Amino acid sequence: MPSTEPQSQPTTPSQPQSQRQPGNDHDQHIAVIGLGNLGRVLAGTLLDAGYRVTVWNRSAARAEPLVERGARRAETVAEAVAAADLVIVCVLDYAVVRELLTPAADVLAGRVLLNVTSGTPEQVGDIAPWVAAQGASYLDGAVYAVPQTIGTPSAFVLYSGSPAAFTAHRERLELFGSARFTGERPETAAGYDTAILSGMYGMFAGFFHAVALAETYGITAADLTDPLVRWLRDAAAALPGFATEIDAGAYATETSNLDINAAGLASILSASQAQGVPTDLLAPLQSLFTDQLTRGHGADSLARAIESVRGVGGVREEAGVEVAG
Amino acid sequence: MPSTEPQSQPTTPSQPQSQRQPGNDHDQHIAVIGLGNLGRVLAGTLLDAGYRVTVWNRSAARAEPLVERGARRAETVAEAVAAADLVIVCVLDYAVVRELLTPAADVLAGRVLLNVTSGTPEQVGDIAPWVAAQGASYLDGAVYAVPQTIGTPSAFVLYSGSPAAFTAHRERLELFGSARFTGERPETAAGYDTAILSGMYGMFAGFFHAVALAETYGITAADLTDPLVRWLRDAAAALPGFATEIDAGAYATETSNLDINAAGLASILSASQAQGVPTDLLAPLQSLFTDQLTRGHGADSLARAIESVRGVGGVREEAGVEVAG
Repeated sequence: MPSTEPQSQPTTPSQPQSQRQPGNDHDQHIAVIGLGNLGRVLAGTLLDAGYRVTVWNRSAARAEPLVERGARRAETVAEAVAAADLVIVCVLDYAVVRELLTPAADVLAGRVLLNVTSGTPEQVGDIAPWVAAQGASYLDGAVYAVPQTIGTPSAFVLYSGSPAAFTAHRERLELFGSARFTGERPETAAGYDTAILSGMYGMFAGFFHAVALAETYGITAADLTDPLVRWLRDAAAALPGFATEIDAGAYATETSNLDINAAGLASILSASQAQGVPTDLLAPLQSLFTDQLTRGHGADSLARAIESVRGVGGVREEAGVEVAG
Repeated sequence: MPSTEPQSQPTTPSQPQSQRQPGNDHDQHIAVIGLGNLGRVLAGTLLDAGYRVTVWNRSAARAEPLVERGARRAETVAEAVAAADLVIVCVLDYAVVRELLTPAADVLAGRVLLNVTSGTPEQVGDIAPWVAAQGASYLDGAVYAVPQTIGTPSAFVLYSGSPAAFTAHRERLELFGSARFTGERPETAAGYDTAILSGMYGMFAGFFHAVALAETYGITAADLTDPLVRWLRDAAAALPGFATEIDAGAYATETSNLDINAAGLASILSASQAQGVPTDLLAPLQSLFTDQLTRGHGADSLARAIESVRGVGGVREEAGVEVAG
């Protein structure tokens, strides 16, 4: 949707409204609300690509370097929103999202709101209907990049929400990193995000255990981390195979079975104890293995441990599995 | 050291003993004891490279495909050892290593024993002095590869023990994967191995949590794992930076501090609970974060969590840090 805001950047002349082709030209106005590490880089990327960008940040000083690069600074969130076809919100948390957007509710209609603020599906589920009720299209984005890698081949962003908004703005979204649409439910990208970050924290937990144990053997963190990272990247290649087994519920294997892994992990935990390293970080995984061995599945794939994660809390029974449409 | 065993492979004629140059020719006799998935591939790799290989396995049938490719099958471990300059042992565990080598003790003198059986530093510390007492040189190897990737660029092997034995046999060791010597203490490679595998199990624990949580959002394991693996590989790039901070004990950061990560993980755990997914696998990491926040280090790097792993068990005080060298 074209903006009614006068164009203040002489280097990107405004075109007649009738020529605007959302999705295939540079005549889109974009607002970036929140200029933290990520927001600044998103705004800068759009400026570099020749878009007209309006920025807003609670402390206005953060906007200055972007203004020098051609951005317009809005005095209020409502002013920034009113200037834009696409509004990107990138703030600390969902309480701030709601606080900032409420005074701009009147000018949201007809625009696309892309929220890349990190949050859980529950939080997205609160805000998305409110945005829709203002007449705007909601897109949620989960960004997998550090600010330095935005726009490089390693960056990727998962989106969910309005398919039409995703399609209309895909050209701009691809500037940040490879853009993947995960579903129409606004919460889906946040579902991926919460799960993916939980996996990352598991890797970090393993890293801390590994470093603490290595130190007791006289190995520095740096010396350990070089081969550790190499092996983690290789071992991650096993995860898609585990995923296939989990989705199929078919765990027959000829290689890495639960017996072998339970013995291997028991040996690691025993060595850790002998070295005085707490086993807290890895003992819960051993409990999953032990539960499966007790049930007689030692010859099955390691992946079968998922059955004990579901099982312990009765996840499937209690929460139900809702299939995204 | 030259073998006294008659050479039975007509395609690789024996050369006069005086011409043998250990380390730079193919005239080395190699024994492979234990023909499981890994042992078979190691033996096959050596055969492909033109070495004279003697194999032994408890069930002799496993040797047959290798015999067809040119290996000689020994009737006993002692016979295999007596045939070899380099003896590679690749069996289930250290009890088996000792059981198999004891009857061959008399013929070990002067040879290099490379033990690639998985084990802990403590187990290596039991067997290595015994091997040395028989007059053999001990090398320990930790193999980072699956049988299919042995000999490919992704494979690597960490070694420790006799530097002379490593140097003498490096040409052969490089056939398996890139060979890295980690130290003279026989236990060092196993120290790396135990720590590296503990890190891998942490990643697996995170994977199981992530899959269980994703399922409650209607995301299949396969759909999740594609972006998850991509992000784990990216996030692993942060670990060397954490390691540098840990080794220096200097945790000042401008990016990923403990406050942010503790809030992020708390949000994941809270979302997991709401979905009925047990938090057991990740709650211990949150305890490390909380401990550091309580001590007033919220603005420091995430890497500072290591201080709480050491701290909880009093690792440094109780076990002491022994520096390899």
